[in-house]
Amino acid sequence: MTQIIEKAVNAWQAFKGEKWKNEIDVRSFILDNVTVYKGNDSFLAAATAATEKLWEQVMELTKQERENGGVLDMDTSIISTITSHGPGYLNKDLETVVGVQTDKPFKRSLQPFGGIRMAEQSCESYGFKVDAEVSHIFSEFRKTHNQGVFDAYTDEIKAARKSGIITGLPDAYGRGRIIGDYRRVALYGVDRLIEEKKKDLQTTGKAMNEETIRLREELSEQIRSLAELKQLAASYGYDISKPAINAQEAIQWLYFAYLAAIKEQNGAAMSLGRTSTFLDIYIERDLQNGTLTEEQAQELVDHFVMKLRLVKFARTPDYNELFSGDPTWVTESIGGIALDGRPLVTKNSFRFLHTLDNLGPAPEPNLTVLWSKQLPEGFKNYCAKMSIKTSAIQYENDDIMRPEYGDDYGIACCVSAMRIGKQMQFFGARANLAKTLLYAINGGKDEKLKVQIAPELTPITSEVLNFDEVMHKFDNMMEWLAELYINTLNVIHYMHDKYSYERIEMALHDTKILRTMATGIAGLSVVADSLSAIKYAKVTPVRDENGIAVDFEVEGDFPKYGNNDDRVDLIAVDLVKRFMTKLRKHSTYRNSLHTMSILTITSNVVYGKKTGNTPDGRRAGEPFAPGANPMHGRDTKGALASLLSVAKLPYEHALDGISNTFSIIPKALGKEIETQVRNLVSMLDGYSVKEGHHLNINVFNRDTLLDAMEHPEKYPQLTIRVSGYAVNFIKLTREQQIDVINRTMHGNM
Amino acid sequence: MTQIIEKAVNAWQAFKGEKWKNEIDVRSFILDNVTVYKGNDSFLAAATAATEKLWEQVMELTKQERENGGVLDMDTSIISTITSHGPGYLNKDLETVVGVQTDKPFKRSLQPFGGIRMAEQSCESYGFKVDAEVSHIFSEFRKTHNQGVFDAYTDEIKAARKSGIITGLPDAYGRGRIIGDYRRVALYGVDRLIEEKKKDLQTTGKAMNEETIRLREELSEQIRSLAELKQLAASYGYDISKPAINAQEAIQWLYFAYLAAIKEQNGAAMSLGRTSTFLDIYIERDLQNGTLTEEQAQELVDHFVMKLRLVKFARTPDYNELFSGDPTWVTESIGGIALDGRPLVTKNSFRFLHTLDNLGPAPEPNLTVLWSKQLPEGFKNYCAKMSIKTSAIQYENDDIMRPEYGDDYGIACCVSAMRIGKQMQFFGARANLAKTLLYAINGGKDEKLKVQIAPELTPITSEVLNFDEVMHKFDNMMEWLAELYINTLNVIHYMHDKYSYERIEMALHDTKILRTMATGIAGLSVVADSLSAIKYAKVTPVRDENGIAVDFEVEGDFPKYGNNDDRVDLIAVDLVKRFMTKLRKHSTYRNSLHTMSILTITSNVVYGKKTGNTPDGRRAGEPFAPGANPMHGRDTKGALASLLSVAKLPYEHALDGISNTFSIIPKALGKEIETQVRNLVSMLDGYSVKEGHHLNINVFNRDTLLDAMEHPEKYPQLTIRVSGYAVNFIKLTREQQIDVINRTMHGNM
Repeated sequence: MTQIIEKAVNAWQAFKGEKWKNEIDVRSFILDNVTVYKGNDSFLAAATAATEKLWEQVMELTKQERENGGVLDMDTSIISTITSHGPGYLNKDLETVVGVQTDKPFKRSLQPFGGIRMAEQSCESYGFKVDAEVSHIFSEFRKTHNQGVFDAYTDEIKAARKSGIITGLPDAYGRGRIIGDYRRVALYGVDRLIEEKKKDLQTTGKAMNEETIRLREELSEQIRSLAELKQLAASYGYDISKPAINAQEAIQWLYFAYLAAIKEQNGAAMSLGRTSTFLDIYIERDLQNGTLTEEQAQELVDHFVMKLRLVKFARTPDYNELFSGDPTWVTESIGGIALDGRPLVTKNSFRFLHTLDNLGPAPEPNLTVLWSKQLPEGFKNYCAKMSIKTSAIQYENDDIMRPEYGDDYGIACCVSAMRIGKQMQFFGARANLAKTLLYAINGGKDEKLKVQIAPELTPITSEVLNFDEVMHKFDNMMEWLAELYINTLNVIHYMHDKYSYERIEMALHDTKILRTMATGIAGLSVVADSLSAIKYAKVTPVRDENGIAVDFEVEGDFPKYGNNDDRVDLIAVDLVKRFMTKLRKHSTYRNSLHTMSILTITSNVVYGKKTGNTPDGRRAGEPFAPGANPMHGRDTKGALASLLSVAKLPYEHALDGISNTFSIIPKALGKEIETQVRNLVSMLDGYSVKEGHHLNINVFNRDTLLDAMEHPEKYPQLTIRVSGYAVNFIKLTREQQIDVINRTMHGNM
Repeated sequence: MTQIIEKAVNAWQAFKGEKWKNEIDVRSFILDNVTVYKGNDSFLAAATAATEKLWEQVMELTKQERENGGVLDMDTSIISTITSHGPGYLNKDLETVVGVQTDKPFKRSLQPFGGIRMAEQSCESYGFKVDAEVSHIFSEFRKTHNQGVFDAYTDEIKAARKSGIITGLPDAYGRGRIIGDYRRVALYGVDRLIEEKKKDLQTTGKAMNEETIRLREELSEQIRSLAELKQLAASYGYDISKPAINAQEAIQWLYFAYLAAIKEQNGAAMSLGRTSTFLDIYIERDLQNGTLTEEQAQELVDHFVMKLRLVKFARTPDYNELFSGDPTWVTESIGGIALDGRPLVTKNSFRFLHTLDNLGPAPEPNLTVLWSKQLPEGFKNYCAKMSIKTSAIQYENDDIMRPEYGDDYGIACCVSAMRIGKQMQFFGARANLAKTLLYAINGGKDEKLKVQIAPELTPITSEVLNFDEVMHKFDNMMEWLAELYINTLNVIHYMHDKYSYERIEMALHDTKILRTMATGIAGLSVVADSLSAIKYAKVTPVRDENGIAVDFEVEGDFPKYGNNDDRVDLIAVDLVKRFMTKLRKHSTYRNSLHTMSILTITSNVVYGKKTGNTPDGRRAGEPFAPGANPMHGRDTKGALASLLSVAKLPYEHALDGISNTFSIIPKALGKEIETQVRNLVSMLDGYSVKEGHHLNINVFNRDTLLDAMEHPEKYPQLTIRVSGYAVNFIKLTREQQIDVINRTMHGNM
């Protein structure tokens, strides 16, 4: 190691601190070296000519891709691995950050380890065909995650999956939501990381039980993947065995690490982490050295972000239905406050957001501001300004996450906080609580499929629904669902580790990590309102010839979630605690920690489609509200009341995140931009103080969206925030677009 | 199931009993239907013309194979699976039992799942080359058992493996020693077996912990493999979904099942089980029906056995060095006594042994007689007669195995008894106790490599070795070895299950089975004699410049193991108990039951080569005695004394078997064949009563072997028993041949 540290001396010149030199500790490096920026956005530089030219090229390719039906080109015979392809470029002469997933941009890679049929379907749905030999290999010799899962699934799990009481499970695609600490490659170089992993391999448990054997094999795979990462960089002419020596190298090293991850995995969410402030330290040093100008610094960031916008995966129609708009969740976490009270805002926090100007708005990378009332005003105002301008930013409450995750966590996917390099998640998609309520009423029979899915518990046969009886039966049904759900996730993650282990991502984690079993719920507002209707109004089931309640007559009014009314809001709070408590009863794979999210991404539409009429008056097939949102149009008491209702949900029982997607029309924020900014900042501060967790901010008029539906060509970069991520509006299906348009757009605070 | 039973009615006509119809229970079927035969060999029929013609063809191919350097042809691009090849024949018009491993006989299949480098090396060593695409697939996309193991091995394990203190581990080849109950396919047909496995899949544990998930995946794989087995048979024109309806089908169905196993696995020992008495029931029914003659019955058996003699695998020079002579351990267990006291000897027990006449002697199938004093005289005499004639039979003591394993066990490989279809083994090769003794003396330093392998325990520094001090240190060193050994085996079997699971073999087991962790020891007689020397004579170590004892001066005489002298024999007994007790301390993979064998196969030569001078006077590099045998030439008190010493070893602490390879010159048994037979039967009865476990019987003169070394062409079928199996003498390496010739050949009883 002495030798490696010597090599690192030049790379680390002028950097302060010792602890991070002796062990892998990026957080210490950041805290020892960060230059907090409390000013405003006036220092920012415009796009360079090179940036503009490259972006024009990207927009042209984007147009071609759209005209080609959504996919421009696909690999059909080269199986994507870290080293599978030679170098590829947009324009080698202009790019300051290089590297694409295959041999050229916009060509999607072939990743069959999650499931060969998925790979085949995703190709076929865009007019391509996977090479027969590849299909042969992955059918006969190389089993995939998908097949492993289905080999172990019980009939009950398969039925529950089919009925949609659990949906969106990562059993046919990569689980994602694992953030490699890509910064480590820049700070330490790959050789040091290999050396540390080799040390860890020396110090695993002595008795060779299955846990230790698995860990040792994983470590060996990690070490192998790090060697391959060096090869990948070498193919572009870079030696990343040693630490990066300047900002350009730091960005490039970090990006190579991320590139290796997306070449190896097409996880649902391939998030980036928390890189901007880390990279600022290199940029600051170069600026101080006089080896970099602000314009060059911005160009590096623009080019890096451009690469992140090029991330694409081959995906199936099923997947696209759940997660609309081709998202990749290259989530970058910006801002936040250090445990010592200093804001972690740097000029580079601005530069990342500034790409929304220099390159125009875009859904990716998924820019996520870790909000705190303590953030510097200049940064708060800039965030609000860019939100109003682009609707491309999401906010998460650093003040409630910091006590749980410290000050070096990042957001994976939409709302899932995790300590960078020290924690990973077993992604669990979500259970449909609205359907569970119907099962409770119908004794486990599915209201759409008309077959028994859950155990044959006694159905409710009374004419009018009685709240206590419903709650009792609902509680029992949740009991069943919680066990089934954890069982299902245990199968999925066992098989994912077995057939599609994330070698390079885990190589960029500590060896000893915290794993969470991240469950989720959907339909929270539907159930809360339904129970409220049963409690406060009179709900009479309409039963079909088999006695299944297929509709509900509601007489009288009832309080609705989203209006800051405790009578119903506390029902929602109870649901979260109640289900979480049941989940915790069941043992999890690798002793992972049970967590839960209230987040649907765009699957609220599919969930709604699979769920019958509900006692809250929602019609069969109608979408649920996304995430923790109140149902569309029911939060009638204004923006603040709506926000206050959601903020009541207990984060400690939903540590995987509580998503709220919020739309407001510009004039509701004020007439002048300054007023709008001020009001938006106030709103975010208020939500944060009330312990709301997450907020997607959309600021636009319904007319804009309607016009974009008619004239997509006029809105190539129109970005909106949906549940936990942003999408290019014109990439949504018509169904999704209508859902978005139907959402509550607050016209007053 | 009703439907399947109906279909089975015809197939089962005239068969008695009900229990085996309602559940998979081949044992009950046998006990309900066996026709015990107490006569002599006079009924046996000679080879038919077809048999002779086919065997000539085999002998011609054997000659070509030998002339071609040991391998005639190899697959280099088709990866062997159950369904990988179309049908292949010797002579389709003459064969009554069909099926070969590839598309033609004597062409070895390509089986890279154990390790791609092994597959490549085995091809290269015979002048073939694995297709580059296959190498690519198994390096990049399909990890193999071998790589998995080495990913998890610790440096300590690798060092111990290199020094040879543990050797022969199945970490680079298939573990074998799993006997599918191939009879089930004949008795029940594949559809019924699939149905039963599907039922088992419904009734696994409810909580999806890793154990249950693994089991469910395995069951799914088993069911898939059964479907493939039907495909295999269909390619030969047979529908084996239903039970076999006559003897020809029964043999053919059973053989297809075994063929599927050897197409999927090249396990070190691919044993057949206990099939002859089972098949006799079908033959008897056909004989009674008048649909079969004795000549035809013998032809079926001859053709079946011929197919078993054709079983071949591609193996590496390293493997061949350990297990000389191309053995496959197609072990067939014959005879034995039922728990109700009836002998399980049938005419078919005779027919199987009679193949040694009809086809001439051969090492495979590995004919194993389950001996008991209670066996019918006619059968005992016939066994002895055939042993004297062919030296191709081994004997195992049914009277000591029956209480442990019941009356439907078979022998896997050499000496490992297991209940058929109800038990499997994690094969563990063996630990070198002789080297362990040297490590105890030298404080963990290897006497050949001169490096520290074991922990740095205090070496012995006294001038003369003191027995108590040596025992104390030896005990500590065994403590270390036992832990290391179990750790190593845990890694191997975890990875074998992960990367090379025996789908079809396990499909022909019950779902709930007993697994044993079958360790082994080598060098028992070397250590016993060494400790005896230290105790009863004066042993002075000769130390090199590093203080390592590299030789030993022995003054005075000492009792030697193999002469029925308790002073040393009890040392051997103690060693077995002592090491076994230490092994039991350590947790095993899948909670398998610790067992141990005293069996070296032919690795006694390699072990000896890797072990320095020992205190018993054995020179460095000299072979150990095989298995539990006394050292060559030291058992000077005659055959019986030698046998009595070995018989003292406690079977309850070596449940995986205690191998004794015994050679006697014909005239020592008597002048006339009748006397010889009578004496050999007496000897076997005596060994059995004294609770000896296993005996390889060789009856020949040293001159025959010397002549065969000089003129191999004269002895194409000369078969001898080595440690636990039989080999074609002329296929042994010169080194092995000399070792065999040097063994004690008893000249008197």
